[in-house]
Amino acid sequence: MNPHLYAVILAGGSGTRFWPLSRHLYPKQLLRIIGDETLIQQTMRRVLRSVPAGRVLISTNPAQADSIRVQLGEWKEDLAGNFVIEPEARNTAPALALAAEALVKRDPDALMLVLPADHVIKREGRFRAAVALGADLAAAGHLVTFGVKPIRAETGYGYIQPHLRKRLAARGGLVGHPVARFVEKPDTDTALKYLKAGTYYWNSGIFMWRAAMFLEEVALHQPALAKGMKAIRRLLGEPGTQDKVSLAYKNLPSISVDYGVMECSSRAAMIPADFHWSDVGNWSSLEEVAPRNGSGNVVSGKVVDLGSRDSILYADQRLVATIGLSDMVVVDTPDATLICPKDRSQDVKKIVEVLRRQGAPEHLEHRTMFRPWGSYTVLEEGSGYKVKRVTVNPGRRLSLQLHHQRSEHWVVITGTARVTCGERVYDLTVGQSTAIPKETAHRLENPGKEMLHIIEVQNGPYLGEDDIVRLQDDYGRVEK
Amino acid sequence: MNPHLYAVILAGGSGTRFWPLSRHLYPKQLLRIIGDETLIQQTMRRVLRSVPAGRVLISTNPAQADSIRVQLGEWKEDLAGNFVIEPEARNTAPALALAAEALVKRDPDALMLVLPADHVIKREGRFRAAVALGADLAAAGHLVTFGVKPIRAETGYGYIQPHLRKRLAARGGLVGHPVARFVEKPDTDTALKYLKAGTYYWNSGIFMWRAAMFLEEVALHQPALAKGMKAIRRLLGEPGTQDKVSLAYKNLPSISVDYGVMECSSRAAMIPADFHWSDVGNWSSLEEVAPRNGSGNVVSGKVVDLGSRDSILYADQRLVATIGLSDMVVVDTPDATLICPKDRSQDVKKIVEVLRRQGAPEHLEHRTMFRPWGSYTVLEEGSGYKVKRVTVNPGRRLSLQLHHQRSEHWVVITGTARVTCGERVYDLTVGQSTAIPKETAHRLENPGKEMLHIIEVQNGPYLGEDDIVRLQDDYGRVEK
Repeated sequence: MNPHLYAVILAGGSGTRFWPLSRHLYPKQLLRIIGDETLIQQTMRRVLRSVPAGRVLISTNPAQADSIRVQLGEWKEDLAGNFVIEPEARNTAPALALAAEALVKRDPDALMLVLPADHVIKREGRFRAAVALGADLAAAGHLVTFGVKPIRAETGYGYIQPHLRKRLAARGGLVGHPVARFVEKPDTDTALKYLKAGTYYWNSGIFMWRAAMFLEEVALHQPALAKGMKAIRRLLGEPGTQDKVSLAYKNLPSISVDYGVMECSSRAAMIPADFHWSDVGNWSSLEEVAPRNGSGNVVSGKVVDLGSRDSILYADQRLVATIGLSDMVVVDTPDATLICPKDRSQDVKKIVEVLRRQGAPEHLEHRTMFRPWGSYTVLEEGSGYKVKRVTVNPGRRLSLQLHHQRSEHWVVITGTARVTCGERVYDLTVGQSTAIPKETAHRLENPGKEMLHIIEVQNGPYLGEDDIVRLQDDYGRVEK
Repeated sequence: MNPHLYAVILAGGSGTRFWPLSRHLYPKQLLRIIGDETLIQQTMRRVLRSVPAGRVLISTNPAQADSIRVQLGEWKEDLAGNFVIEPEARNTAPALALAAEALVKRDPDALMLVLPADHVIKREGRFRAAVALGADLAAAGHLVTFGVKPIRAETGYGYIQPHLRKRLAARGGLVGHPVARFVEKPDTDTALKYLKAGTYYWNSGIFMWRAAMFLEEVALHQPALAKGMKAIRRLLGEPGTQDKVSLAYKNLPSISVDYGVMECSSRAAMIPADFHWSDVGNWSSLEEVAPRNGSGNVVSGKVVDLGSRDSILYADQRLVATIGLSDMVVVDTPDATLICPKDRSQDVKKIVEVLRRQGAPEHLEHRTMFRPWGSYTVLEEGSGYKVKRVTVNPGRRLSLQLHHQRSEHWVVITGTARVTCGERVYDLTVGQSTAIPKETAHRLENPGKEMLHIIEVQNGPYLGEDDIVRLQDDYGRVEK
């Protein structure tokens, strides 16, 4: 492996297009959409064939960092210092500039492979071949894109036309070319023309470059961004400047790397890649990556169907019964169900927008929330009470905390709970329960080797997650 | 009012066609499908304009009797002795023979108005006019049917052709005719011919006759049924013969009153009725009785829709998002969702059949079950535990009971609970909890004036509803 090769996984998606499975706080990359692992877990494993875990950076935002740490827990030690957390989403150019700054500081010769966390790639050997050629081109000073052969007249992607007759380098059956031009999201007629011409490629959103070279190109084409980054770099060295860094970052121009850097750069190169790629951009694209049954349906979960065809029937624990559907998408989750024709899948984001404006919780989060110590699922909420199932992983514990406005009752349903309540510490086993009065410091811990599940009943006039005063926490979540 | 006039409400439906809103143990008549009251409550109120509550009989089966008693609680005293409970569903002819036996014993001159519990009738004044003429015809010895003018070539109904030129009686703008012939469920071409002819009527399933005359006609046309009924009549007089009655009833021929009696009888008469009638026989027929919005949709519950039309979007508390649907049915309940084109609504019963064969609980019951003292909702079930929200109406209490295999934890979320646990009796208020060990006699009571809501967490190897040993019960449910 090239010792200067690093990977940056872009994991800051907002999760509107896979609603209701994805939520604002639980975007597509965190979902088990196809296969046994989530998309970010699959992306991590893919990267590890080319780069060791200690050289993988995760670019994300504060809201998602916890969930990502949990999902990538297998590489916890390697990734410990590798999270690059944007104070606020400012699109990909600032996110990648921040990551590049971090890399240059670590290794001035760093090569930077950039991959979105939520794509599906098959034929991984060909992916590694493309990365190997990309490293050559990046080392030679190019900003490398990976082009994918179009298979339909898609209007939602960017297209790249390479100078196919100019060859920059070749390796492993692949050739790199300079980029002739980029075209962002063409209309249908143009997309059809490109598809027929056979000389245009989809921009896969995967990139490779020397980190230092990328920052030079940012300085050249996005001076405002470069200036803001310079200020941030200075602040990062000083103690107690976190708020100033956040503010400076929030003032950066919000611009994509495609539009802000790649389309302007004379150093852009493209490798026509031959791996199988999908950005699984909406529900209908699931057909490209998931197996279909004999009737052409992609079926998942507890579905009873009579005679549907060419449909996506995506359920989980609840029962979904379908009769005679054609080219439809049905997605069921514990608190929300979506039904639309496949060709309206793009409009799911409009539903999310409606929900956001209504302040409906279903756009924001799931009934199940993941935490560093385990997870909880809200079973029911009503006036003055909330019922949760809380899962604590073996050896983990929640923070020592208290609530001003609620009392809690815990009943153990699996495993052993070690309870701290005020001055007392005691263990509860299956079928035992305890009451935690309000204003009392308490802690829930799983001292055992099996999972701990409890049912928690909260009572009080206000039951928001922000009525938690953390006194001690294993995961650094104590407010100062 | 005619002092010999009685009504029999047929309330034994099996609830397959309105699944998932209806369930085997919770059929259509118990649902609030349109308006603020359930269909059986609306039927009761309709009948009361013609017959006093003390002369209304409810024909049902053991599984539904409890729920019906709760829903008709307003008339509890009047209806106390008026439930005619079939030991087993044997179709309408035996059920009506049983009701007729009960009536003849009470009043040898009883006139019997028979109505299904789950129809929707509008223009109720015209319904009363039809009943008034029906009483005249019934008193004169006819078996009276009420015909409804067909509005489409429906193949799922029976059709009646009256001798329109022969007039048996007239009153309130209506005329009674002898029946020329019955035709059960014709094919589409025939139904279309009948619709065009204008001289055929839908059989509404509403009947009227002298109870004694009906039994005579049963004896004439269904001698096996009459003979079985005679044996049952004899057994009913003796003590301790309940099992024999059940067995005798189960051996009666299963036959509908239309096919077994009406179609054979020379006494059949028909009144062309002019009330608005719908049997709301499946989801698509909801359009006939429920208001549609500007896009032609019937919408209920928490639905977010973008551009659907002519669809039935029936949700409740969960969020259902729909985009661009046309002529579709979407029905969402806490544990199951149905999606099908309107013209496949009849096939819902096939889904129910599949679920029945799989032993899936979703065909049988809802997450919420009604009891004489209130109701409970299963919030979650898992291996070794079950979480319920239990609602106890003011002044009511559950039976004094014990469980062999489970302990229970109760947390009060609204109201006051009076708890009996072994020898102790104590009150709990909001936020207080208690634990009930297994093998311990216990009781939950609401001594207050507001509703009592508790969260119950059950723990144990077996959590079925049949692990209840009732020691005392206000509702006569103690097993001998």
